[in-house]
Amino acid sequence: MADSIRFILVRTSHPGNIGAAARAIRTMGFSRLGLVAPHRFPHADATATAAGADDVLDGIAITPTLVEAVADCTLVLGCTARRRGVQLEELSPRQGALRALAASVDGQAAIVFGNERTGLENDELMSCHAAVHIPSVADFSSLNLAQAVQVLAYELRLAIMEQAPPLATAAKIELPATIEQLEYFFTHLEQMLENIDFHKGRSPRTIMQRLRRLFLRANLEEREVRILRGIFDDAQRMARLARPANGRAEIEGGGKA
Amino acid sequence: MADSIRFILVRTSHPGNIGAAARAIRTMGFSRLGLVAPHRFPHADATATAAGADDVLDGIAITPTLVEAVADCTLVLGCTARRRGVQLEELSPRQGALRALAASVDGQAAIVFGNERTGLENDELMSCHAAVHIPSVADFSSLNLAQAVQVLAYELRLAIMEQAPPLATAAKIELPATIEQLEYFFTHLEQMLENIDFHKGRSPRTIMQRLRRLFLRANLEEREVRILRGIFDDAQRMARLARPANGRAEIEGGGKA
Repeated sequence: MADSIRFILVRTSHPGNIGAAARAIRTMGFSRLGLVAPHRFPHADATATAAGADDVLDGIAITPTLVEAVADCTLVLGCTARRRGVQLEELSPRQGALRALAASVDGQAAIVFGNERTGLENDELMSCHAAVHIPSVADFSSLNLAQAVQVLAYELRLAIMEQAPPLATAAKIELPATIEQLEYFFTHLEQMLENIDFHKGRSPRTIMQRLRRLFLRANLEEREVRILRGIFDDAQRMARLARPANGRAEIEGGGKA
Repeated sequence: MADSIRFILVRTSHPGNIGAAARAIRTMGFSRLGLVAPHRFPHADATATAAGADDVLDGIAITPTLVEAVADCTLVLGCTARRRGVQLEELSPRQGALRALAASVDGQAAIVFGNERTGLENDELMSCHAAVHIPSVADFSSLNLAQAVQVLAYELRLAIMEQAPPLATAAKIELPATIEQLEYFFTHLEQMLENIDFHKGRSPRTIMQRLRRLFLRANLEEREVRILRGIFDDAQRMARLARPANGRAEIEGGGKA
């Protein structure tokens, strides 16, 4: 299961923190590290602070965006230093570790850490199913990046160690939706809302944030995504029929009236 | 109780680790750091890695031996990377944190960390009541010193938080939807699906069961129920506009076209 859990560092400024994070996860039995748009990597500082965790450094996957880094994941947890405006379910490190471990049984899980100074951007948090908050004190809340990685890796290792021998998981049939499938889902949802004229005086952005939060929290299965998108299709079909003068309706075809 | 727990670094080689340890304990609400025969301190590297935890650095107590550093303690735990020849009770970080917390109620407790390369000497371990072992993997067992400090400080903070009396958590604003609200929601959803002609060859019952399962699992809030029902309203409005011949559309009224 450790192979199905990855750690992602987003827009890291200091390469020394990348190496220290590699060492941190390596000591806890993990090996998969991803970097999203690192400021400087590879770098001698990273090699130095990795202190021999070269296999982790060598295996690093680099992507330009977070969405690409977690496209195949069924669970993405964003580590945040403090409570944000974004409405996301907030987990303790221990809760997050248990959730990630459960997801890793038949899928891929990612723990995501933002830039040293600025953390994760709101749009990055919107790709996360939930936030993990390390309970630091209010008047000095900022952990060093690699130390935050260490705490999460430590909790994950405890969770793996404490877990009973692998269950016969043959019964599990429902496949969780991947982030990629969810992004298509959200795009479809947003388009449908526009088609049925849902955003009247309201801000589409706020509503979409709330809906993203809801559906990410729900840990949608593939089949549920298909059902919901089927509903969106029918609502869009009705919207086209309701607006025969609309050019798009003509192009996309009408269906029965 | 945090004031009665101290962290002691013994013969630390790299001053950067002293500062990082200061920051680590500070984020978890601790302030007492002791150094036994540090190789270099004070040092600019320590100031830099402390990242603002200057109160911890300023309050550091330096002693030539460990015995002097813990003379007034009723519990001393030595953090060890791996099992030693010395016969000492071995605790997990969590067990160690609970033990230290209990001791701090009416005494002084210390968590002791050895040199980066060589750890604690056997005679230093003989001043410890028990050893704490962070469960690293066998083939890469060496945590960075400051990261070991972070793990212990984190477990101590959890232990303190778990035993603190519950705060008045008035902050929770989002109201969960009641079962009654959810039943109206599901009725509305079912009606909407019928209006947009979603149940073609499919069984409405199976689909509704799946959707109920999804939305119950999501623990909907009142506000989310309102948003979703607003979407249903608009989808129904489109369906009415799409079927001007439908009698129900006439009765319920059309809205703009």
